[in-house]
Amino acid sequence: MQVEIITIGDEILIGQIVDTNSAWMAAELNKAGFEVVQITSVHDDEKQITEALEAALERAEVVLFTGGIGPTKDDITKLTLCNYFDSKLVFDTRVYADIELLLKNRMRAMNELTKSQAMVPDKAVIISNPIGTAPITWFDKGEKVVVSMPGVPYEMKRAMKFEIIPRLQKQFQPQAIIHKTLLVAGYPESALALKIADWENALPESIHLAYLHNFNIVKLRLSAVQDDFSATKNEIDRQVDLLKFILGNAIIVEEDITLEELVGRYLLASGKTLATAESCTGGHVAHRITTVAGSSAYFKGSVVAYSNEIKMNVLGVDATLLNKYGAVSREVSERMASGILKLMSVDYAIATTGIAGPDGGTDEKPVGTVWIAVGTKDSLVSRKFQFSLDRQLNIERTTQMALLMLLELVVSG
Amino acid sequence: MQVEIITIGDEILIGQIVDTNSAWMAAELNKAGFEVVQITSVHDDEKQITEALEAALERAEVVLFTGGIGPTKDDITKLTLCNYFDSKLVFDTRVYADIELLLKNRMRAMNELTKSQAMVPDKAVIISNPIGTAPITWFDKGEKVVVSMPGVPYEMKRAMKFEIIPRLQKQFQPQAIIHKTLLVAGYPESALALKIADWENALPESIHLAYLHNFNIVKLRLSAVQDDFSATKNEIDRQVDLLKFILGNAIIVEEDITLEELVGRYLLASGKTLATAESCTGGHVAHRITTVAGSSAYFKGSVVAYSNEIKMNVLGVDATLLNKYGAVSREVSERMASGILKLMSVDYAIATTGIAGPDGGTDEKPVGTVWIAVGTKDSLVSRKFQFSLDRQLNIERTTQMALLMLLELVVSG
Repeated sequence: MQVEIITIGDEILIGQIVDTNSAWMAAELNKAGFEVVQITSVHDDEKQITEALEAALERAEVVLFTGGIGPTKDDITKLTLCNYFDSKLVFDTRVYADIELLLKNRMRAMNELTKSQAMVPDKAVIISNPIGTAPITWFDKGEKVVVSMPGVPYEMKRAMKFEIIPRLQKQFQPQAIIHKTLLVAGYPESALALKIADWENALPESIHLAYLHNFNIVKLRLSAVQDDFSATKNEIDRQVDLLKFILGNAIIVEEDITLEELVGRYLLASGKTLATAESCTGGHVAHRITTVAGSSAYFKGSVVAYSNEIKMNVLGVDATLLNKYGAVSREVSERMASGILKLMSVDYAIATTGIAGPDGGTDEKPVGTVWIAVGTKDSLVSRKFQFSLDRQLNIERTTQMALLMLLELVVSG
Repeated sequence: MQVEIITIGDEILIGQIVDTNSAWMAAELNKAGFEVVQITSVHDDEKQITEALEAALERAEVVLFTGGIGPTKDDITKLTLCNYFDSKLVFDTRVYADIELLLKNRMRAMNELTKSQAMVPDKAVIISNPIGTAPITWFDKGEKVVVSMPGVPYEMKRAMKFEIIPRLQKQFQPQAIIHKTLLVAGYPESALALKIADWENALPESIHLAYLHNFNIVKLRLSAVQDDFSATKNEIDRQVDLLKFILGNAIIVEEDITLEELVGRYLLASGKTLATAESCTGGHVAHRITTVAGSSAYFKGSVVAYSNEIKMNVLGVDATLLNKYGAVSREVSERMASGILKLMSVDYAIATTGIAGPDGGTDEKPVGTVWIAVGTKDSLVSRKFQFSLDRQLNIERTTQMALLMLLELVVSG
């Protein structure tokens, strides 16, 4: 069952925002058995929206719009769909009541713009949006379906989860797609591809393989349309067993989860605790760890020691070490790790120190030089890395590598 | 001059990754005077790629592909373009030498897959990619241009900045588009729209207005195609002056910059320093502050006090306060702020404490309850917020609100 997503908004096409909605929608649709054929982003422009809709309806059974339904003048999706479906706007008392309640809860007054959100196309099924002023509109076009949703991510997510996907499943009863994702560490993408080339070439046609690499981790994803559930699942399981035989411990988990979730799972199981001492990552390691719900059970906290003064006064790094080796050194990374282990009385620590850039590099330690230490009070592992010239990339890579180093430790320990 | 972006990869359409490339490309193209008409994401599928290319060429002069040119079997963009342009693959010794050098620097060996990256279409101009194994291919089709680039963000960015945009500018000499962005605080989007409705209705047709809201900040963006540079610029300036008259201090800056950049600018100018004490934001405030290059000049560090133990032992919050008022309270947020002011000897502090969710809420303090304190050793401001049920959203909103509260303080102080 094929779906297309069309996201509307000038802000996407001039690069003012990143369209994160589509990826979330695609993942949810996939889980529910729908295949997303194409994602299209167009301007707030009637002609463009209409042409994108017509093209999408040629390829797919379902077209999902997000965005362009705010109360301001630049938003024209509602009018465009009215014209396309030869529909007219009518006042909807139920939608008006929803908006009234929403504004009351937010202690805001109704104004003519928010009121105009209660004008809805008469040929659409109107679906409540209790957390925003724009309702969801659902048009049937023969056997096909066109839905318009808000672009605000949490409004769209609520609508998809509780309204759109259940209704689509009821109407189309799609075949599920089975995915199996393996996370592989320790191989560059091309080396991994060669290592498993014979296996890949012998894969049955019904199974599709994709590679996705995030710096030091390659995700291998096997997908198949579920025909006979147990047969499809058995074939995927069989292929995964073969892969495990080839790759052994390089497969760190047989699930599509993040490193921080995986680390958290091990810590939770062992009842151990964690803290971080961060210089160049500036809190990003702690942030990634704490995006995981329930992380407070094992994560006690972090000291972001951006200045040397904090490294000394809070983490107890000796001034002599800083003078002798510099802030970006094995010695300082290890001392930061032992400092935080003691300060926060935790079992495991991560410490990062490096030159994120764009300034601060020297001939000896250019931008991108990073030391990471991980360990316990009994033993520390530290490694030096030479990442890139890009500040953002250096922060992200250091974080990703630090989590992988910790994972190796908690798995073995 | 119109451009379309086509991003290729199954991982985008199953929602495994967010396409961040397009937004970055669109912003850069816009600055260089190109308008992005449409962004399309398609599968690694010859038919889909070809159809998307044909449709794009009907609308635009330039089509930019990213992705699908890795060395693994699932990547088929190169072959698809060869077939489309009736081109054949030839071995390129210069590309081979590039790959050899790259692998040598990374201490990796050449293998048959990386070697295959040196096979390039004979009808394309081949542009070096010194930081990856896949070269960039540039096809001319009459007056139009089709370019295929890597999907790896830093490889694509380098190619765009140093090769593609300069070449496109030379070939097409586009008219620049002038943008002016104002950041407005303190108005919900619809209230702002009403406040400026008369002004908006009187805008000349040549100026396009867009609203973009990120929680507590609305960005107003005025755009116009540069006709006569000084005339266009004067007209935009005149309109901005009128807006300033209407909105006064609600306009916090007349530039498209982030709150953390703006805060940093004020701190740098005043020579003041900052630290954060974070509970529910888990390091995200520090992370946003340290994404700004040069932030080490004013940001000393942070204590992420995820557990009460750390709030007490590191930040000096009294156990009696925690018992009497709970960790999520005005008293504790203010004590965290004064604790970090003292511990890190800084001029300004931000402190956050809240229930990010999904668990941990009570009737009295449901998920989404957050206290934020900002201030100096002489005075603290603290406010309570009731955000959402979504963990990620609560972390982001708390961070955004904390930065805005600090901004108000550093502007006035």
